[in-house]
Amino acid sequence: MSERDCLRIVPLGGVGEIGKNMMTIEYGEEMLLIDAGLMFPKNDMLGIDIVIPDISYVVERQEQLRAIILTHGHEDHIGALPYVLSDVNAPVYGTRLTLGLAEVKLREHHLLDQVELHTIKPRDVLPLGPFSVEFFHVCHSIPDTVGLAITTPVGLVVHSGDFKFDPHPVDGQLTDYAKLQELGNRGVLLLLSDSTNTEAPGSTPSEREIGETFEEVFGEAQGRVIVATFASNISRVQQVIIAARRHGRRVGFVGSSMVKNSRMASRLGYLDIDPQELLTSEQMNGLPDERVAIVCTGSQGEPTSALVRMARGEHRQINLRRGDTVILSADPIPGNEELINRTIDNLFRAGADVHYHLLSHVHVSGHGSQEDQKLMLNLTQPRYFVPIHGEYRHLVLHSRLARESGIPEENIFVLESGQSLEVDSSGCFLGKRVAASRVLVDGLGVGDVGRVVLRDRHHLSRDGFLVAIVALDMDTGEILVGPEILSRGFVYMRDSEELMELAREQVWQALEQVGPRSAVSAKIKDALGEFCYQQTGRRPVILPVVMEI
Amino acid sequence: MSERDCLRIVPLGGVGEIGKNMMTIEYGEEMLLIDAGLMFPKNDMLGIDIVIPDISYVVERQEQLRAIILTHGHEDHIGALPYVLSDVNAPVYGTRLTLGLAEVKLREHHLLDQVELHTIKPRDVLPLGPFSVEFFHVCHSIPDTVGLAITTPVGLVVHSGDFKFDPHPVDGQLTDYAKLQELGNRGVLLLLSDSTNTEAPGSTPSEREIGETFEEVFGEAQGRVIVATFASNISRVQQVIIAARRHGRRVGFVGSSMVKNSRMASRLGYLDIDPQELLTSEQMNGLPDERVAIVCTGSQGEPTSALVRMARGEHRQINLRRGDTVILSADPIPGNEELINRTIDNLFRAGADVHYHLLSHVHVSGHGSQEDQKLMLNLTQPRYFVPIHGEYRHLVLHSRLARESGIPEENIFVLESGQSLEVDSSGCFLGKRVAASRVLVDGLGVGDVGRVVLRDRHHLSRDGFLVAIVALDMDTGEILVGPEILSRGFVYMRDSEELMELAREQVWQALEQVGPRSAVSAKIKDALGEFCYQQTGRRPVILPVVMEI
Repeated sequence: MSERDCLRIVPLGGVGEIGKNMMTIEYGEEMLLIDAGLMFPKNDMLGIDIVIPDISYVVERQEQLRAIILTHGHEDHIGALPYVLSDVNAPVYGTRLTLGLAEVKLREHHLLDQVELHTIKPRDVLPLGPFSVEFFHVCHSIPDTVGLAITTPVGLVVHSGDFKFDPHPVDGQLTDYAKLQELGNRGVLLLLSDSTNTEAPGSTPSEREIGETFEEVFGEAQGRVIVATFASNISRVQQVIIAARRHGRRVGFVGSSMVKNSRMASRLGYLDIDPQELLTSEQMNGLPDERVAIVCTGSQGEPTSALVRMARGEHRQINLRRGDTVILSADPIPGNEELINRTIDNLFRAGADVHYHLLSHVHVSGHGSQEDQKLMLNLTQPRYFVPIHGEYRHLVLHSRLARESGIPEENIFVLESGQSLEVDSSGCFLGKRVAASRVLVDGLGVGDVGRVVLRDRHHLSRDGFLVAIVALDMDTGEILVGPEILSRGFVYMRDSEELMELAREQVWQALEQVGPRSAVSAKIKDALGEFCYQQTGRRPVILPVVMEI
Repeated sequence: MSERDCLRIVPLGGVGEIGKNMMTIEYGEEMLLIDAGLMFPKNDMLGIDIVIPDISYVVERQEQLRAIILTHGHEDHIGALPYVLSDVNAPVYGTRLTLGLAEVKLREHHLLDQVELHTIKPRDVLPLGPFSVEFFHVCHSIPDTVGLAITTPVGLVVHSGDFKFDPHPVDGQLTDYAKLQELGNRGVLLLLSDSTNTEAPGSTPSEREIGETFEEVFGEAQGRVIVATFASNISRVQQVIIAARRHGRRVGFVGSSMVKNSRMASRLGYLDIDPQELLTSEQMNGLPDERVAIVCTGSQGEPTSALVRMARGEHRQINLRRGDTVILSADPIPGNEELINRTIDNLFRAGADVHYHLLSHVHVSGHGSQEDQKLMLNLTQPRYFVPIHGEYRHLVLHSRLARESGIPEENIFVLESGQSLEVDSSGCFLGKRVAASRVLVDGLGVGDVGRVVLRDRHHLSRDGFLVAIVALDMDTGEILVGPEILSRGFVYMRDSEELMELAREQVWQALEQVGPRSAVSAKIKDALGEFCYQQTGRRPVILPVVMEI
């Protein structure tokens, strides 16, 4: 099939893994890029700050790139934008709040001046070369989220964005059922739909149910009420403000991303708070407890977050005290459970009463559950289906729902990132695989840390290292200085003088053995390795240095 | 209060943290030690193999130690026994299965010959100095678990062990309701009760409910059925055997601890399996799929376990194939979620159908939920209450249940490990704190890895290290060799020649600056640290070595 007469979809992230959502849609020589997300590192990606998609596929075709379209303002959909826009140039389209959040990032990366940002609204229709992109509102855990209906020469493609069907959303904006049904009537060729929450049976409850929990907790609390949640969850923050208002409390924001986001959301009109209701940090400690509510970061137990510092008694502004009530208004993201549990323990130790997901109804997901996913399938009635936004098991489970909804198995495609899909009038086919691995960002380095460095970090994290240095006379082989031994992370050096002395002896013995001078380093390494293992049961990284003078 | 006329309880573990359960009970100059458990390391205890309690308090009083009493055979109750018995000597009491498991450990540590093991049965009464210890059966996720009723000169102390009230246990042995009620009638001074599962409302369901899930899955499965669970969960293994039997399948055990435990449990009569029903590894691959069931380790996604190797296609014996059904019959232990999810994804990728806790009823806890805990409180009606076996939040929540059950707040004591409690006829009081920290075991080292080594490992795991070596002429200060730079875990060295050349220049410059020779190392360290951060945004461990020849 030539590239000219078919539609090609290439997921570069967000398919087979959570996060760093990104996908191209191409027809002929025109390409759209949907979302540019980052992923937070897994626990075994030691020292890595963030993970972004490999965009070499896009860079190679950058003259074809017509637009970058953002579905909403979460990190896993916009966090890689500065990295993408450092390599390619294209106008960026998104809703007002989404672009507001993107702007903050682009400014930090000194890219704001060179980027064209275009604000769109739900129901806008955007002609982009062979494509016509129509935006429709969907409910999610951040306002101003959209899905996309993309009319292409081969048919209509629907991209759900991250969505749920909230029957009673806090901002009053329902997911656009009418548009979805209309699209279904028009005839959808291909549906790409959010799989994140497909392990949950039933429907995701309304965000407003959390308001009832807040109402109850605020009603009973004698002291301050402190709510930790995601800084981007504007609806949740709004519900805290509403509960505080009803119970005669003013609200303070703590944690830099919380302060920044709430300020921005309030300025753009997405957060309804009167400046009179706001608390300074002095007031958070100084006003009578029953007049204070605090919204802060740290619901995932992030070690440097506001809540964790409070729990450890190390926060500059807020000292927890007996009588404070804390709500962790979030579910644990898998991998964070240990940090969250430790934080809850510390909050109880500090005397607070703690409400968290195992005890109270403190969180609802921003993603649709199985029934929501089925509704999306049934409204749009696509011919072909590709589950997106999920780890591999989510894609498999979402596919099962699609089969139950009547889509034939051969019309469902479980892709992994990099696996392209081609659609034309004759059908839908797997295309070639393109490079779509993970790019690790560590400090200023983008992509320079790979398997070797991570393996070394892993090894160092288990058993530390040991460096043995010896200077030899170039002519006689006589030892001029050393052996000196340096070590970190292996044993406690102050208590290990004897062990180090014995290690030095190993080096001497290795040097005394006859053999080619070139093999001395290897011999020292082997001797020390065996010695360390026999003495301690550990296998530190061993580096011998033989200098000839 | 003198030590002679009061009862003292000292938790050395298992109070305020999950695992490494251990507690002393003392009266006058006689001491019992209850349990000797280990804890598996938290994710931030880098390179640590296991964590055991600090037993210096016991060692200092070893001539008072009358007996070590084990409540059941789980690692968090017996895993530290070899370490304890290396330092102190005392007879060990436990049920037959518990001692069977303890023996395996003691043999591995070459301690079996020098230890006195005494088998007890439920309802046995054991006079031990001023104490009389009565054992009663409780249900848990391993057979032969007991609780303790300890008659002391000041009153009756009940230690629940790890328990639940299973209304229909697989082995037919109910928790001893009658004994608990009788104890309540006799009058319980102090109840020490298991808090592990206090976040769960209601009652813990019967282990037998899992049999229904197995029945259903085995009934539908076309290919092989592979069940992963804890090697110690003999009842679960029994249920797999029963389901396999009903569906004409034979059973293979895979994973060394699974093989070892099932063999031992079968030999001691705790596991009902006919040798004819057992499969060799050839048969697991060679028999028709519908005649094969496999029980294996790896339900927590442990990287070297059988299931994880199968999921990655790296197992020596078992190759997964499309049509296989896998049941992960366990809940995730907090901290293991990421590894478990990855394993599930890989199982789906290998073509298996996977049943796990979010989708099916594949596990019930071995610990009582809130209603079970209340029943324990209501049967025993203690005057004083101490929640044990739980992290801090569990202790707080269990205390709330005790208050709801009518125990006055001032009679409830939330302890942390090392906080002693004293009871006499006049009341119950907090006593002194004793050393009860965590002892980290790393390879052969017991307690030699502490804060400094862990901090270094953490630092190395994030950014690696860089060693700069230079040899100077002792008299002239002229550089004889170097600077040489070694590094691991910082940057990918093969691509970083230019960076290393620049780093060497930093060392030269530092050496050229005038200043006392003694300050050269510090200067090199500062210069390199700043250089690395400016170039890469990373802060490796930096070690300068200046040799004078």
